[in-house]
Amino acid sequence: MSSFTDPTTLSHHDLEEGATLAPRFDAQGLVTAITVDAVSKDVLMLAHMNAEALALTLSTGVAHYWSRSRGKIWKKGESSGELQLVRDIRVDCDQDAVLLIVEQTGRGAACHTGRPSCFYRRIEDGRLVDTGAPKLFDPAEVYKAQ
Amino acid sequence: MSSFTDPTTLSHHDLEEGATLAPRFDAQGLVTAITVDAVSKDVLMLAHMNAEALALTLSTGVAHYWSRSRGKIWKKGESSGELQLVRDIRVDCDQDAVLLIVEQTGRGAACHTGRPSCFYRRIEDGRLVDTGAPKLFDPAEVYKAQ
Repeated sequence: MSSFTDPTTLSHHDLEEGATLAPRFDAQGLVTAITVDAVSKDVLMLAHMNAEALALTLSTGVAHYWSRSRGKIWKKGESSGELQLVRDIRVDCDQDAVLLIVEQTGRGAACHTGRPSCFYRRIEDGRLVDTGAPKLFDPAEVYKAQ
Repeated sequence: MSSFTDPTTLSHHDLEEGATLAPRFDAQGLVTAITVDAVSKDVLMLAHMNAEALALTLSTGVAHYWSRSRGKIWKKGESSGELQLVRDIRVDCDQDAVLLIVEQTGRGAACHTGRPSCFYRRIEDGRLVDTGAPKLFDPAEVYKAQ
């Protein structure tokens, strides 16, 4: 189920303008995934997918990533309950990135810190300023069993 | 100017909750950059930054990336005129990704194909469907001198 067209078999034009999905997995076998909230359009997180994670995401409609730190498939929300239901999925011009437009379920917290988005700090004058995004869950509580 | 705090000198808590900007550049010296339109909130593109590109972006307020294909600093829009003026810049929880919220100048085309966004194709039933985003410039014309 995780067999995609090899992008090296496509012309540059077909890769960028064609109808064939041919993800350009990198040397680690990964593409980058950007995940956006379907309602607010806020960027929720950035993660990575291997072929299996992308195939699972497409077949189930639920976001699956590849956890580089744990070295395994990561069904987002499996521990926390914060599943992401995919409403739209895009690929970029050179097919090395995908964009997931999702309904963030659970408490609405895509970030493991409990915040809605991982991008909760602004860079100002070389320092980080918290934007004040709420913590919708207590990570110590949610992840205590792991 | 491109000297940032070494993230390995920070505790896990300080990396994720603190005020110190300490980008976690990867083995290639890069962080991932997501670029979003400040008005529409559409995701325009995904690219990478080395320390110099991030420092230039912060000091000039104009998006600079690292071109992996050309192996050099890439001032976005230098050839095409499609400069990106940074209105807000965020870092994610573990500081290996940045989010640029930009005013896309020029014709409004972040993608080298001439479209507003690089994510102009939707994945449907394993195939790519063009969303019909307009081509705001002719790449053959804009990049002909290169």
